[in-house]
Amino acid sequence: MATSDSKAAPEPQPFETLRWRGELPGELILLDQTLLPGEETYLVCRTVSDVFGAIRRLSVRGAPAIGIAAAFGVIVGIQEATRSEEDLTRAFQETVDRLAESRPTAVNLFWALDRMKARFAELSGKPPVEKVQRLLDEARQIHEEDRQQCEAIGRHGAELLSDGHRVLTHCNAGALATGGLGTALAVVYSAVRDGKKVSVYANETRPLLQGARLTAWELQRSHVPVTVICDGMVGTVMRQGRIDAVVVGADRITARGDVANKIGTYTVSVLAKTHGVPFYVAAPESTFDFATLHGDDVTIEERAAEEITQGFGPRTTPDDIDTYNPAFDITPAENITAIITDRGVIRGPTEEKVRVHFGR
Amino acid sequence: MATSDSKAAPEPQPFETLRWRGELPGELILLDQTLLPGEETYLVCRTVSDVFGAIRRLSVRGAPAIGIAAAFGVIVGIQEATRSEEDLTRAFQETVDRLAESRPTAVNLFWALDRMKARFAELSGKPPVEKVQRLLDEARQIHEEDRQQCEAIGRHGAELLSDGHRVLTHCNAGALATGGLGTALAVVYSAVRDGKKVSVYANETRPLLQGARLTAWELQRSHVPVTVICDGMVGTVMRQGRIDAVVVGADRITARGDVANKIGTYTVSVLAKTHGVPFYVAAPESTFDFATLHGDDVTIEERAAEEITQGFGPRTTPDDIDTYNPAFDITPAENITAIITDRGVIRGPTEEKVRVHFGR
Repeated sequence: MATSDSKAAPEPQPFETLRWRGELPGELILLDQTLLPGEETYLVCRTVSDVFGAIRRLSVRGAPAIGIAAAFGVIVGIQEATRSEEDLTRAFQETVDRLAESRPTAVNLFWALDRMKARFAELSGKPPVEKVQRLLDEARQIHEEDRQQCEAIGRHGAELLSDGHRVLTHCNAGALATGGLGTALAVVYSAVRDGKKVSVYANETRPLLQGARLTAWELQRSHVPVTVICDGMVGTVMRQGRIDAVVVGADRITARGDVANKIGTYTVSVLAKTHGVPFYVAAPESTFDFATLHGDDVTIEERAAEEITQGFGPRTTPDDIDTYNPAFDITPAENITAIITDRGVIRGPTEEKVRVHFGR
Repeated sequence: MATSDSKAAPEPQPFETLRWRGELPGELILLDQTLLPGEETYLVCRTVSDVFGAIRRLSVRGAPAIGIAAAFGVIVGIQEATRSEEDLTRAFQETVDRLAESRPTAVNLFWALDRMKARFAELSGKPPVEKVQRLLDEARQIHEEDRQQCEAIGRHGAELLSDGHRVLTHCNAGALATGGLGTALAVVYSAVRDGKKVSVYANETRPLLQGARLTAWELQRSHVPVTVICDGMVGTVMRQGRIDAVVVGADRITARGDVANKIGTYTVSVLAKTHGVPFYVAAPESTFDFATLHGDDVTIEERAAEEITQGFGPRTTPDDIDTYNPAFDITPAENITAIITDRGVIRGPTEEKVRVHFGR
């Protein structure tokens, strides 16, 4: 390990969620998030099974990060199959089919695989070795675009934070979920990079504790002061005047600006509104679903009872107890101060403002 | 185990948090709450050390239940010391001093011990055997008064619930915390006994999970339908119209009706107000602190970080992370629809209404 220069400002995000190592043949390196926060171990993926297993086991998670991992996963699967055009086409098809089964509901996974398929079709007639090289370029481009989107979100969002601000966030919408600085946490990292002293309160985010496990880990590693609280404490920390702004990510945003995000987000939005704390949602354009107007038309997945009854080892409820475990909730646009996108900030979102903002 | 009669209405509370078994000499029987919800095991306390250990280890918890256990604990300590007056006086003093050290901040513990001391003084001059008998009567009286307060709270509160109501509660203010039906849960049990179909949503109540572990257990054992949710889900279940009323207990209520209760209560009160859900607090007169006007003058204990960082067993945050872990929060009177006491209901509590209600 290199010795750090104690005079230099700490570099935000001194870890890599995922990257391609080498040229061709190369390998996909992934931070194994199943071992966080206890261990920082990197997986080396040299076969499609390695990549498939890593996505399925949640070693890599977060919609953008999964998409990027799948794009590089395609290269892992085809880079040795360059003896003939038939050989490469068969390997490409097998790889794409396999990876598509890793997380059946992950939108970015299909989006990334479709983009690799489209590029493969465009390259028809090129020699196999050249095709693989161009597809690696495409995967790198997908990664680079995600990084730039994160940067842009961070840049626009940082203007909303002042020196000394204390930001509350929920779940993990950070570098661990993307190929760059994250979405919600990009706003924090970017403000810190601008020299503002910003600290974070991280909701632990039951049932899966992504806040306690992942957000706390990446902020600590990035030298951003972070305090973990339980989700029910949000009202009290706001009442005590400890929070200057809320910044969260989004799984989907409707045309009128309603936000589907991790369960617990809506509760935070109500508390923010009551206490006059600005509530910001950070997400790239690709998170917007212009075909859906109202949040209540988004289908909410219900997850297994065990996440509540034995979330972290021992059972903490009686046997055969009823639970209710929605994975996401809907925060209506009326509770949102502004949506921070890679293409600028939409204040007081409405259908008209969202459509005008994106020209959709 | 006796065969249950399937035609009879299920009896609420088919377990006993604590009871005195036999006459003199007898023993204190305690439900060991440290083993809940996995195991229903009763501790037999035959020595002061048994009682001291049970209170200290939280085998018995909840302010009223601790007070009653301490009163019977005095009898455990003195019932064999009847050879002489000096013998009894020494045993009484040693027992009281020892039990007073079991939970140094439990108000009801000292209240119950002081009451036993006062009774002991009144009995001056009586023969030792009679003194012990009268002190056992006093301990039974303390238990009986608590049971009657719970009944009265339940009776007054049940009038506020209608057939089919779904009640949200936080933490455990039930039979497990008192010598009777509880405070908040007495309202539920009493409504059920009146023939109303009432069901409960139990907040799991991080960090110590009293809702998931204790409230879920006692309601399930009492055949009251209960659904466990995570604390951050409250906003969404209210927005979905699943909650008709909130009923919680209280650790302390000020003269103007501000309520100190388990951390997370304030968050629920804000959500209830926003969604037009009535928010009720259930507590006996003894919970009122007429010498304190404002909730913000109540000192809030901060508890150990480990409750957040390894609350489920394995560590779920990075090492050396900052946490904020207040044990209680303050719900201002303005967020409270009514306070349900053993002496009737105070609607829209204010200082005037509270003082007039109790003649204080």
